[in-house]
Amino acid sequence: MIYLDNNATTQASESVLSAVVKYMSKCFSNASATTAAFTGADVPRRNAASQMAKILNAEEPETFFFTSGATEANNWVFASIASTVRTGTILISSIEHPSVREPAERLARQGFNLQLVPVDSHGVVCLEALGRLLSPDVVLVSIMAANNETGVLQSIGEIGELVRDKAPTALFHTDATQAVGKIAIDLQKEWKEVDLLSFSAHKFNGPKGVGGLYCRPGIDLTPLLVGGGQEQGARSGTTNTPGLAGLAAAVDEIELTAFGEVRQKRDYLEQQLLKLAPILIHSVGVPRLPNTCCFSLPECSGDDLVTELAAQGVIVGSGSACSSGSQEPAQTLLAMGVDYQVALGSIRVSLGPKTSVEELDFFLDRLKENLMSS
Amino acid sequence: MIYLDNNATTQASESVLSAVVKYMSKCFSNASATTAAFTGADVPRRNAASQMAKILNAEEPETFFFTSGATEANNWVFASIASTVRTGTILISSIEHPSVREPAERLARQGFNLQLVPVDSHGVVCLEALGRLLSPDVVLVSIMAANNETGVLQSIGEIGELVRDKAPTALFHTDATQAVGKIAIDLQKEWKEVDLLSFSAHKFNGPKGVGGLYCRPGIDLTPLLVGGGQEQGARSGTTNTPGLAGLAAAVDEIELTAFGEVRQKRDYLEQQLLKLAPILIHSVGVPRLPNTCCFSLPECSGDDLVTELAAQGVIVGSGSACSSGSQEPAQTLLAMGVDYQVALGSIRVSLGPKTSVEELDFFLDRLKENLMSS
Repeated sequence: MIYLDNNATTQASESVLSAVVKYMSKCFSNASATTAAFTGADVPRRNAASQMAKILNAEEPETFFFTSGATEANNWVFASIASTVRTGTILISSIEHPSVREPAERLARQGFNLQLVPVDSHGVVCLEALGRLLSPDVVLVSIMAANNETGVLQSIGEIGELVRDKAPTALFHTDATQAVGKIAIDLQKEWKEVDLLSFSAHKFNGPKGVGGLYCRPGIDLTPLLVGGGQEQGARSGTTNTPGLAGLAAAVDEIELTAFGEVRQKRDYLEQQLLKLAPILIHSVGVPRLPNTCCFSLPECSGDDLVTELAAQGVIVGSGSACSSGSQEPAQTLLAMGVDYQVALGSIRVSLGPKTSVEELDFFLDRLKENLMSS
Repeated sequence: MIYLDNNATTQASESVLSAVVKYMSKCFSNASATTAAFTGADVPRRNAASQMAKILNAEEPETFFFTSGATEANNWVFASIASTVRTGTILISSIEHPSVREPAERLARQGFNLQLVPVDSHGVVCLEALGRLLSPDVVLVSIMAANNETGVLQSIGEIGELVRDKAPTALFHTDATQAVGKIAIDLQKEWKEVDLLSFSAHKFNGPKGVGGLYCRPGIDLTPLLVGGGQEQGARSGTTNTPGLAGLAAAVDEIELTAFGEVRQKRDYLEQQLLKLAPILIHSVGVPRLPNTCCFSLPECSGDDLVTELAAQGVIVGSGSACSSGSQEPAQTLLAMGVDYQVALGSIRVSLGPKTSVEELDFFLDRLKENLMSS
């Protein structure tokens, strides 16, 4: 199997596997028990928090709360707003992941004033529009760091300053699920205005079912899940020690410098694609994740082609690769003003640090065959 | 390490480990991708649902929704009630786990009429009191199947009939976290009035961070986590394929008949305990989980003793073993009318199918030494 769908999920490395296995078999005890200091069950959460603080340059490990993943973290942010603020304006970009968009829409139905910040034809959030929409009435701004479909990066630093300037009391949240592990993030420098940041371990070679929320000191969140009082009372549920041990191991292995090579391979892929057919590559020319290539083939169903390629042993993505079997076009492309038919013909190739040129060539050959036979 | 804290969490078996490792390394793809049929990523969820349906004798696998565990499942039930019903009476027992009690209290603060159904001095829910509290105004009844501290079993069948008789439109939820895998459950016979049932895989040798909610056909829950639309739209978040594969493997290994022997060993332990000191064993004489023994030592801090034993290589529980480092007495015992000091001196020993008599003897020897030196 040639796997080119690393924005959907990633393979665990050997060290992640052994961390998970260790805390499922040998050190399986409950991290909340009074015996945790003796069983070692208190170690994974501490390590996970330290590793996250290091990779994001956060103030301290205590700023992280762990959840079942970014979907829970994103939902939590909106649920907390709903319970602490009765009314106000919420701004999200028009290309947010459904786990941000749907909780936002839920709040709109509860009476909040929800406004979508538009993106340009490349998928970049329009700062001028954002500036106009920002006001002291805004309680939350949620703008994703990197788009799952196109890989487009937003200027989180600039957006943060704009938010702080025009809506001083608003919380600034970024869904960084696709960004963590692929680009440099500094919560004390460029991203210093970010109040809340979501992440999922399985996007950077960690385990599925674990992720979390960075929460800047001084910000009080209302818990979404209550009960046992884990995560300093912020998120209840038995601590997922194997998941956190795996997350820590995955973060420890992140090598951002490796993405320089990934970018070169992605660019090679795009050069070859353009030789193949009248292909439209989305968001070329604006800052993108180094591993992501999203393109559309004329008069073609992306879903059908993805299925055809899978049958031939090549796994790529279509649409947002989130909802099971949905035949809807990529929402991000539609928000960018791409034609419906062109969006339906979109394919997403997302490389990992280990993706080889040979694998890309194999994919290109299969793609060529499919185009010729159709 | 001698591990006698199986109600807190359990060790994964070899087959659970290999299932988890397989879906983290070999078949790591995204279960929601259109390629899932080719990668095999759609298998774990299907197997997990089938296994759960079999072990609980549920109508069909489609009645299960998977979550990050029972805490999320319990919270979800109450969040759904809050969003579908504006007002009404909610009944929970006075010995519920915090992940039921706290969401219920949250609803009480939102205007619901919350009533606690008392238990007798053994910890058994008072059916006569429940009968009096039930009325057509009741929207939800939540009574745990087996208590985490004492192991006391409630008559879920009888309670269900009472609920259906006196509050026909109420939903009947049971937190079966401690029951699944330890006692026989039949959702089509004795437990046929149960509408919703929570469970966590790590309580029956499955992975941490995965569990779910049984939801009887015809009952509509409002999702707690929205976004990607996984779990038939009921619970979003990337499908935790390794967790579900591990859950399925764990259920497949459940042997309820093995708990006959576990009961014999637990009874042996209790006989020996009574020879040791003036020990009060809680809830003797009422139906209990076969693996659980909860006792109090006079003039003793359960927490201190648990820590002492852990230093000597024996892991047992104190209090509810949920909240990190809490020095509060077991809430269940207090609700049963046990004195505060006696509750503070409580210890919980919970056996697993593999616990040996030699391990129990080792524990008894260490306990004896500790009592003599104090």
